[in-house]
Amino acid sequence: MCQLFALNSNAPSAVTFSFTGFSSRGGSTGDHADGWGVAFHGEGGCRVFIDDSPASRSPLAAFLREHPIRATSVLAHIRKATQGAVQLSNCHPFQRQWRGRQWVFCHNGDLKSFAPLLDAKYRPVGSTDSEAAFGWLLQQLDLRFAGAAVPPWQDLAPEIAELAARLGEHGTFNFLLTDGQAIYAHCSTRLHWLLRRHPFAHVRLVDTDLSLDLSVANGPGDRMALVATEPLTHDEPWQAMAPGELFVFVDGERVWQGRHVPRAPVQVPTGFRLRMAI
Amino acid sequence: MCQLFALNSNAPSAVTFSFTGFSSRGGSTGDHADGWGVAFHGEGGCRVFIDDSPASRSPLAAFLREHPIRATSVLAHIRKATQGAVQLSNCHPFQRQWRGRQWVFCHNGDLKSFAPLLDAKYRPVGSTDSEAAFGWLLQQLDLRFAGAAVPPWQDLAPEIAELAARLGEHGTFNFLLTDGQAIYAHCSTRLHWLLRRHPFAHVRLVDTDLSLDLSVANGPGDRMALVATEPLTHDEPWQAMAPGELFVFVDGERVWQGRHVPRAPVQVPTGFRLRMAI
Repeated sequence: MCQLFALNSNAPSAVTFSFTGFSSRGGSTGDHADGWGVAFHGEGGCRVFIDDSPASRSPLAAFLREHPIRATSVLAHIRKATQGAVQLSNCHPFQRQWRGRQWVFCHNGDLKSFAPLLDAKYRPVGSTDSEAAFGWLLQQLDLRFAGAAVPPWQDLAPEIAELAARLGEHGTFNFLLTDGQAIYAHCSTRLHWLLRRHPFAHVRLVDTDLSLDLSVANGPGDRMALVATEPLTHDEPWQAMAPGELFVFVDGERVWQGRHVPRAPVQVPTGFRLRMAI
Repeated sequence: MCQLFALNSNAPSAVTFSFTGFSSRGGSTGDHADGWGVAFHGEGGCRVFIDDSPASRSPLAAFLREHPIRATSVLAHIRKATQGAVQLSNCHPFQRQWRGRQWVFCHNGDLKSFAPLLDAKYRPVGSTDSEAAFGWLLQQLDLRFAGAAVPPWQDLAPEIAELAARLGEHGTFNFLLTDGQAIYAHCSTRLHWLLRRHPFAHVRLVDTDLSLDLSVANGPGDRMALVATEPLTHDEPWQAMAPGELFVFVDGERVWQGRHVPRAPVQVPTGFRLRMAI
């Protein structure tokens, strides 16, 4: 299974410390050696770095550990291939433009017998179940919400929770999704989370012999939320999410949580009918 | 105005030498200091690197000059902002998934009074005329060609030439476009091109004091095509493209050339009617 990591903060933050621990799992402290990727959303836009070599030995990962990129939303992924070859087009995070924002997505799990009918705009480039699930999610959201703008996260969250539950019927579906404004984190089997705020602690990484006094790196008004498959640090109160839970993080706070049992049978969503009627 | 660069080859090639010269134009030998980007398409997929700092001083550009990434199609861009702030979301190349392939696009020029009506899937994320033009191009191609697959370049080329001519009515529109299979290069005012093949020469960069014996880096069967706003090397027969010309490069060869005068008045394209009739 893959490893997921996310950071959401109220001010641009560097993730070099966390990424140093996290990227060790790509072939060093973990056997997830089939590629990795990280997406940074900041005020000026979004950029995604991917590589099909193990994160612990990748020169590009070393570059990112040494050169802080400050961002308010960060998603990272370390791959252990279950479906699809070890190649760039199968590395997470995947990215798609939808309604004028850059959406990025990464997945830990394995969806069986999932072959959705996707419109040409949402078709995967690579051969993973994960990218197909991402395309399906965006296609469903496009059908459910009329208009050209991205709906507010308050409206998106319950729909994403319901869609996640439907996808979860195909197998393990821990995932992270963001448009740079909100991070949606869904736990299917295993995902941990943590809030960091003043007073900041002195913390030690689980994966490497490195510690950091967070009070030096952060001001009293800074707050951030972290999500990871396994806790990244000692000395911090990481909590496990429950299977089936979706959390939404905005400005370093958890602003929504929900747990959805899928509707049965599957119905044509209201948004679709509304849209057709315009 | 910005600077464009493309390489298309029949075997994966590194562009560290060319990129070293080209990136000097981002703030050193040229005043194009408003960001830069480079996209690599290889067998395993596509990845795009962008940065909003000058290419000549960017640590990420230095990393790419020092770490060869082998690819069969490369597009690069150095920005001098005409429309849109200096920020990541306005850096070229822009990328979009269309029909299961990753398309990337970069533009040199300035389109005036260009505000197309774009479907939600093709809306720009940033605020440049360039990204809007890219969205419009893909939207038009989607309307003109029925089906879910990418049409062959033989079918795409004349349509892209015609669409380029229509966009050219709004201003300067030199551009590069690729899906990793073919590179489409359109000259509106200024673009040079070159074929490299056996016997390979010893060449010197125009922008920095660096030379390379291409016969050491390449085998007798290697062939490649290069495109750049201004010639990158001395000692090679760079040729200027004519205004209005579109060239297509596949496997290091120029496989198509055309020049299109726009149709007037604008008609609903045949492909659109075909698609609606299904």
